[in-house]
Amino acid sequence: MKFTLLHTDKDTAARAGELATAHGIVRTPVFMPVATRAAIRALTFRDIEEIGFDIILSNTYHLYIRPGVENMEKAGGLHRFMNYHGPVLTDSGGFQVFSLSDLCRIHDNGVEFKSHLDGSRHFFTPERVVDIQKVIGSDIMMVLDQCTDYPATEKHVAAAVERTVAWAEISREYWARTVDPDAQALFAIVQGGVYPKLRKSCVERLVELDYPGYAIGGLSVGEPKELYREITEYIVPYLPPDKPRYMMGVGSPLEILFAISRGVDMFDCVMPTRIARNGTLYTSTGRVNIKAAQYENDYSPLDEQCGCYVCRNYSKAYLRHLFRVGEIASLIYNTYHNLFFMKTFMDDIRASILEDRFSEAEKKWRYVYGSDN
Amino acid sequence: MKFTLLHTDKDTAARAGELATAHGIVRTPVFMPVATRAAIRALTFRDIEEIGFDIILSNTYHLYIRPGVENMEKAGGLHRFMNYHGPVLTDSGGFQVFSLSDLCRIHDNGVEFKSHLDGSRHFFTPERVVDIQKVIGSDIMMVLDQCTDYPATEKHVAAAVERTVAWAEISREYWARTVDPDAQALFAIVQGGVYPKLRKSCVERLVELDYPGYAIGGLSVGEPKELYREITEYIVPYLPPDKPRYMMGVGSPLEILFAISRGVDMFDCVMPTRIARNGTLYTSTGRVNIKAAQYENDYSPLDEQCGCYVCRNYSKAYLRHLFRVGEIASLIYNTYHNLFFMKTFMDDIRASILEDRFSEAEKKWRYVYGSDN
Repeated sequence: MKFTLLHTDKDTAARAGELATAHGIVRTPVFMPVATRAAIRALTFRDIEEIGFDIILSNTYHLYIRPGVENMEKAGGLHRFMNYHGPVLTDSGGFQVFSLSDLCRIHDNGVEFKSHLDGSRHFFTPERVVDIQKVIGSDIMMVLDQCTDYPATEKHVAAAVERTVAWAEISREYWARTVDPDAQALFAIVQGGVYPKLRKSCVERLVELDYPGYAIGGLSVGEPKELYREITEYIVPYLPPDKPRYMMGVGSPLEILFAISRGVDMFDCVMPTRIARNGTLYTSTGRVNIKAAQYENDYSPLDEQCGCYVCRNYSKAYLRHLFRVGEIASLIYNTYHNLFFMKTFMDDIRASILEDRFSEAEKKWRYVYGSDN
Repeated sequence: MKFTLLHTDKDTAARAGELATAHGIVRTPVFMPVATRAAIRALTFRDIEEIGFDIILSNTYHLYIRPGVENMEKAGGLHRFMNYHGPVLTDSGGFQVFSLSDLCRIHDNGVEFKSHLDGSRHFFTPERVVDIQKVIGSDIMMVLDQCTDYPATEKHVAAAVERTVAWAEISREYWARTVDPDAQALFAIVQGGVYPKLRKSCVERLVELDYPGYAIGGLSVGEPKELYREITEYIVPYLPPDKPRYMMGVGSPLEILFAISRGVDMFDCVMPTRIARNGTLYTSTGRVNIKAAQYENDYSPLDEQCGCYVCRNYSKAYLRHLFRVGEIASLIYNTYHNLFFMKTFMDDIRASILEDRFSEAEKKWRYVYGSDN
């Protein structure tokens, strides 16, 4: 993996780059749609290719549970299994172990958990998580980290940071020894909750380990928007400028915009697809609740500015009808549109950075999405 | 609408034809996928166009309930509403009124029912059903008929036949007086349950009314397969050879094959899409239960003979995984494949008729689908 910083905006820290992975080039800043269980919810991969995403995200924990590592190995890795041959980043599963599994016991050498499906017992170590992602064939692997909730005491978060750093040391060494670094990169994850001191300690020690890329974890877990922004603003300058920066699990257009303005390059979030299934659609003029009665006889496209298959073919009245009667096509069309919006949105921002007019683009999008983040 | 009989098989009554409708040519025999509520379950219309279906079916009762006739009128009809511009046949809603609505009271001049959604009261007359389908803009309308269940007493079925014929007289006259016959055809529906005498009486009186097309209703409602075949075989010869013949709600490859061999031209059924969502897939070598453990590590396509998007791209192991984890993509891929199969199956049969080798094709498909109809 090779990251090339192409340009930094003249007024802000916003940056445009290119991430060369084993399966192709990723133009940054980038939004990664989420294929948790080897599929994008409600879409086909040809939709994803048509929309033009450079990279998708999948999840180690979910793939480990089903279809399982042995089957993933027999399939020849995730790319062959799902016949998608673009870049893939996998989350380490750390977050899912803490949030999904029935029991989760932290040990110094790893985390013990029960499957949320059948209660079977499992153990993830930093090394094991690298091994699983090696089998998956992720272009970008994530390290095993210890996530913390919000709120959490400083003492609890401090212990999580210690463990995260200790595991990051083990992971870095194990990855260098067992993985082809050109084929599969490994990113560290900065924890530390909403405590600047802990964040600083964590990031400084992780940067010393010289990882190919750095993620900011443990945000967008329920903390107030102001704290998210404060921590983001505080932490990004500590990250090495020549490495890609990934904000995990964020999210809304406005918070992506904020993080980009501070120098973050990569994003993933289930929000655009989840709210689509609930009938909330992003447009160039703001959010649309397609369930609303006002669209009953609105035969205009959802977004006149949007060039997607859905906006070129269907009216708000039709989309509202599909939602109301509960057709699966409603999930498909809404998801397609929201992901197309995210791609267009990121493309617009990237172009503005390359042309030194990010602040202008930021202002435009803030105007549209400022009120209902 | 104009029906042209192109060829009748040399050994059987199987026939190939062309039905010219206001929205295009329909090659018969034809399978019509079902878009009950203005959408094919789990697919987009571009999937339907890609598969190459000549005609789809929608439903007067469901469209009447939602989005409603007034909205359908404001939308400019169903074609514009769902932006699908191929031929559309609509069922009259008779069957749904009898099977879905909470209360259903038959009067001499029509049927009173409560919406299955909100309990509101409605009344369908033969004329009203033509009017609604006029607004919908169906290329082929169906008359209001009185369906009977299986089993039903001869007396009950006889009364239903009387009413069906009486309504057909009213409908025929009203349609001729109020509808452009070139734009919107109207088909009669033969009832009579499993009683040959009643079927004969019904069909003879309906044929006298000189309808543009004839459907066989009230079959595939739970009667044994043998009775379905017996009645089909008995009734088809009474239908005028120069008019299209439509077997409503059938069904499985084998029963379609049987009806074609007796001279039926048109079919619709939710079975291929419904079983797809439950993981049962049609292939050139028989049914496949994609849930089966035997496919856990089967990385071959579902059907080596199939040229569909799914078979060209995904393995049985992947399709099984998607089904097991409950991904919406499983519904999409399975539905796509089964409808593609139905199209290929009908194309194969049509070609065999045109080339005077229907019996050979019939034998082949009977061999494949004979055991588990």
